[in-house]
Amino acid sequence: MPEIQPHRVVVIGGGFGGLHAVRGLKHAPVDITLVDRRNFHLFQPLLYQVATGALSPANIAAPLRAILKKQKNVRVVLGEVIDIDIAARVVRLNDGEIPYDSLIVASGAQHHYFGHDDWQHFAPGLKTIEDATEMRRRILLAFEAAERETDPAKRRALLTFLVVGAGPTGAELAGALAEMAHHTLRENFRSINPADAQVLLIEAGERVLPSYEATLSARGAKALERIGVSVRTQTAVLAMQEGSVSVRHGDQTEIIPTHTVLWAAGVQGSPLGVIVHQRTGVAIDRAGRVVVEPDCGIAGFPEIFVIGDLANYAHGTELPLPGVAPVAMQQGDYVATVIAARLRGAAAPPPFRYHNRGSMAVIGRAAAVADIFGVRFAGLLAWLAWLFIHLMFLVQFDNRALVLMQWAWHYLTWNRSARLITGSEAHGQGAPLGG
Amino acid sequence: MPEIQPHRVVVIGGGFGGLHAVRGLKHAPVDITLVDRRNFHLFQPLLYQVATGALSPANIAAPLRAILKKQKNVRVVLGEVIDIDIAARVVRLNDGEIPYDSLIVASGAQHHYFGHDDWQHFAPGLKTIEDATEMRRRILLAFEAAERETDPAKRRALLTFLVVGAGPTGAELAGALAEMAHHTLRENFRSINPADAQVLLIEAGERVLPSYEATLSARGAKALERIGVSVRTQTAVLAMQEGSVSVRHGDQTEIIPTHTVLWAAGVQGSPLGVIVHQRTGVAIDRAGRVVVEPDCGIAGFPEIFVIGDLANYAHGTELPLPGVAPVAMQQGDYVATVIAARLRGAAAPPPFRYHNRGSMAVIGRAAAVADIFGVRFAGLLAWLAWLFIHLMFLVQFDNRALVLMQWAWHYLTWNRSARLITGSEAHGQGAPLGG
Repeated sequence: MPEIQPHRVVVIGGGFGGLHAVRGLKHAPVDITLVDRRNFHLFQPLLYQVATGALSPANIAAPLRAILKKQKNVRVVLGEVIDIDIAARVVRLNDGEIPYDSLIVASGAQHHYFGHDDWQHFAPGLKTIEDATEMRRRILLAFEAAERETDPAKRRALLTFLVVGAGPTGAELAGALAEMAHHTLRENFRSINPADAQVLLIEAGERVLPSYEATLSARGAKALERIGVSVRTQTAVLAMQEGSVSVRHGDQTEIIPTHTVLWAAGVQGSPLGVIVHQRTGVAIDRAGRVVVEPDCGIAGFPEIFVIGDLANYAHGTELPLPGVAPVAMQQGDYVATVIAARLRGAAAPPPFRYHNRGSMAVIGRAAAVADIFGVRFAGLLAWLAWLFIHLMFLVQFDNRALVLMQWAWHYLTWNRSARLITGSEAHGQGAPLGG
Repeated sequence: MPEIQPHRVVVIGGGFGGLHAVRGLKHAPVDITLVDRRNFHLFQPLLYQVATGALSPANIAAPLRAILKKQKNVRVVLGEVIDIDIAARVVRLNDGEIPYDSLIVASGAQHHYFGHDDWQHFAPGLKTIEDATEMRRRILLAFEAAERETDPAKRRALLTFLVVGAGPTGAELAGALAEMAHHTLRENFRSINPADAQVLLIEAGERVLPSYEATLSARGAKALERIGVSVRTQTAVLAMQEGSVSVRHGDQTEIIPTHTVLWAAGVQGSPLGVIVHQRTGVAIDRAGRVVVEPDCGIAGFPEIFVIGDLANYAHGTELPLPGVAPVAMQQGDYVATVIAARLRGAAAPPPFRYHNRGSMAVIGRAAAVADIFGVRFAGLLAWLAWLFIHLMFLVQFDNRALVLMQWAWHYLTWNRSARLITGSEAHGQGAPLGG
């Protein structure tokens, strides 16, 4: 007997998790609605390349409609989810509503300033395209202001770049920034030598790349120092103010004059986590992530799933799974199989299990650290592996070949052609942070 | 006897004119300062490709510092010129000043709404990167809003795109927009068919591409209609309001419901033209352009030159020279020779003379009209010529090969990968113009 109405699946968020869930349901008898605030999928791991002028936003973003145009059982809606009506099974947008039979919440994470929300003004994070172009703008404007500054102390402050947080994003950002100063901008200025720029990488913990094995952390730190990054571990930010940042290292405090602070220290779940918590009573952790069941569902609400950076998944693992793309992708694939099995009337699949195929961070040209299937390596080989794997993951992007070309070009020429200062204060003068 | 201090040349504006002037003085015994509000040179003729999602901003912009890094006698200053002190020979910035011995004003043009400045809110123009991404945002948001609109009349208004002005920019923009609707967005939506979009090209004059010879205008109009643009000549905009535009054709007036109006009708000289006028007493025309002498100088002030879109040059020509890149480039080269000759103590070069090597407009894939050395042609051949000449002119851009790749890719796939809705209201819902 044919179904009267197909099972309605609503997916909130077109990131790695949401997109994989949608794709996993391609052949299931469902009507899918994918809701996102943005019209594109963003390859977040490469945002730092936009922030440092190596890639253009469009190189790392692909329109959701283009990605999914062939999948006829999905409809893309550009909209902002403001609430979920658990009883009526309806997702509320600010200008409409979408009913669901199954709901997959994959709205990701955002910056977290550990209670210091005022730091956001001084230290932009790196989660969106706008964040990346804002970082790019501040970095480039600092060099511009330094070129025109005649006071040596002020000039030095303008040429001091502080990256807070030495996880993969912070390490990659600091490395790219150091290479930009030492190579890309060479001969670009007349009054300053961009290579005089100081790139400081501040980490509150004991070592850089804390999620990696200790020997890889050490090699990562060495690689960072070699390309010109000053790494300071066990150093915490105390305060930020116009033109400087106060840090503490042990008992010592120090004020570092700087006009460009980049935040890579903390993330928290998107506000939808709190809404899921309020509506269902499910627990959320301190980072605002929703504590999910072994099948990525919500206790008492089997029709609701939370996946990706917004989920706290801690079944069969020592720590909750990290907020990285492979976890989100695998969870997306998994919940698609759960929903499909239910619709077939088949037994539920075994609990979700993360297959860690490795992790890697790139620290500049031909320098990376990698941990793939337990094999740890660094240097050129790790960098090539990083390049290969990232390009493989860019499979949704039909401009993959172009991105490869662009990278090859940058590699050969040290060029960063996307060094545009755009946005509201694109022609601003003076200190970007002071203005 | 060596000079005590080299002759100081200040160039305002790093567009085609300013850049050519700077390059022309490469071997002259001068100290050049190039001042621009932006840190990049912009290839304005391709802005419409950014507005329609085919190219990324960085594809058509190159950092001024990168372009000029090898030319050691030039210093680039990111700054905004607010005044010129003719007596003291000093250019005033909002945060400093730069003395000059020779001054080249090449600050270009901006939109002109013929006294209807309120139209700017409804109908953005196309002069800057931000203009282009704003147009792109409005176009894409209109399709998004139409997808969610259930009222047929409102949907039709959302799918109506009005381009005002059928010069090269308007014709190219309308053509690209029609191709986007008919090809690129195919299968991207579920409730609407993007090919149902109406692209209207409104022109107050008698024909499209009025600066071209009449037979080419006719062929251009035919090409536009063939790819889905509705051309309406002798049609003037009377008023713009939320959700519609009033136009007049002969004695008839009509209200066209639309949410996306793109302005390609008028330009005027940059505000520096008025400042030059006020300080020197030189005449400016109705479009705010400075009336220059046969050597591109200002009457009574031989040390000041005005070139490019800001100049009204009408010596030996029936009409003032048009505001196109080749005029600006040739004037830039020319004033460099004038200054170099003065410094050598040589006779002044003969008056500037524009060598018109032809003009062309592209009206979609493999459709263009061209007039090169008096040979007029249209169609694929014109399109290939357009492509070749634009790429040749992109010579300053070291990403020229990448742009070519990107174009080839788009040509083969009809793809426009830079279809990102970014900016402040990137996730806005509802009608972009109504919101």
